[in-house]
Amino acid sequence: MFDSIHLVGEGRAGTVLATRLRERGQRVTVGRHPADRADLVILAVPDRVIGEVARRIESGAWICHVSGATLLAELDPHRRRFSLHPLQTLTTGRGAEQLDGAWGALSGETDDALDHARWLAETLGLRPFEVADADRTLYHAAAVIGGNFLVTLHQVATRLLIQAGAPPEAIVPLMTRTIENGFDLTGPIARGDWSTMEAHIETLQHRAPDLVPLYRALAEATRR
Amino acid sequence: MFDSIHLVGEGRAGTVLATRLRERGQRVTVGRHPADRADLVILAVPDRVIGEVARRIESGAWICHVSGATLLAELDPHRRRFSLHPLQTLTTGRGAEQLDGAWGALSGETDDALDHARWLAETLGLRPFEVADADRTLYHAAAVIGGNFLVTLHQVATRLLIQAGAPPEAIVPLMTRTIENGFDLTGPIARGDWSTMEAHIETLQHRAPDLVPLYRALAEATRR
Repeated sequence: MFDSIHLVGEGRAGTVLATRLRERGQRVTVGRHPADRADLVILAVPDRVIGEVARRIESGAWICHVSGATLLAELDPHRRRFSLHPLQTLTTGRGAEQLDGAWGALSGETDDALDHARWLAETLGLRPFEVADADRTLYHAAAVIGGNFLVTLHQVATRLLIQAGAPPEAIVPLMTRTIENGFDLTGPIARGDWSTMEAHIETLQHRAPDLVPLYRALAEATRR
Repeated sequence: MFDSIHLVGEGRAGTVLATRLRERGQRVTVGRHPADRADLVILAVPDRVIGEVARRIESGAWICHVSGATLLAELDPHRRRFSLHPLQTLTTGRGAEQLDGAWGALSGETDDALDHARWLAETLGLRPFEVADADRTLYHAAAVIGGNFLVTLHQVATRLLIQAGAPPEAIVPLMTRTIENGFDLTGPIARGDWSTMEAHIETLQHRAPDLVPLYRALAEATRR
């Protein structure tokens, strides 16, 4: 679909995308400015500079960004445009295989744009799904809640384990198995054991008062 | 260490414990009342009835409960007592192997009690660690935060994905990989991108206002 692809951005996402595209036989250049005649320019740059970088790029080629939260209007004045967000956490310790099995959220304003986005997702090894540009922020909030806030729960749990004199790594098999078991809820909330939850809040009030609002908000959301 | 073990409770925990103990060659009886001459009585019953069940049991044998939150005093008037909480979510769809790799929190008031608790943990295949009875509630709050509230995050994220027209299962590879990557924080918070977080809150205020306090509490805990 594209003869040549140029990638702006050499961070974690940019590196993984370039590697995967080359593995798939694509001609890829990387750098701040597109080489002559790139058919597609992919912006893998921080959200706040997408607009500025897009405006520097000559019109004509297709352009896309890989941000979760950013709307297509940030790619103005380009018209042949779409976005594709890999719904995955990427680390420098792994290669392009970390895209395998992950999903990719694509947005576009025309069928043609969506076709190009779908081609890119599939070439990268992502399972594509469409998100309306107007739903993009809500979609990205979900990604942050599932991904980033999972890190937060782990931080909070390990902090309390250390405070209780327990080994912090003891929480990991529980978290892994909770996912493996398809997020089956067990424990006090599943048993409707509110007195245990109240005891937790009372203890947190004494020993980690800053966590009381968080515990309450999580307990409340779980109850619903 | 024990010639015969009696188990009260035939729920998920009780079933798994009985199976594992038998696999390890222990003589195990199960039922509401201990068989004659059981050396150890294990209470795998709901937290709120532990005290009542303990009082019905004749003194003499060792007694323990497997609750995360319950203090040893609930086992009054027994003196030869300890507690051992498997820090794992147990499902009826799996067998005793679900204890493998999990940790077990033990509490006891004497060296003798702790030795017996350690023996039971190791016989069950758990990696034992001690938690002071006074730290038990804090420890259990950590377990609920890491395990139960992980289910909550998943529920909330899938609800928002559905609202955004995205497939709810798309969040699972992200959550799994976040654990596999050792809870490495990526995304907007790691990049200090507060404007994206503000955009999430603004969107939630319109589209899922009940989640705003939860999002704020999680963002605040992550920032710290």
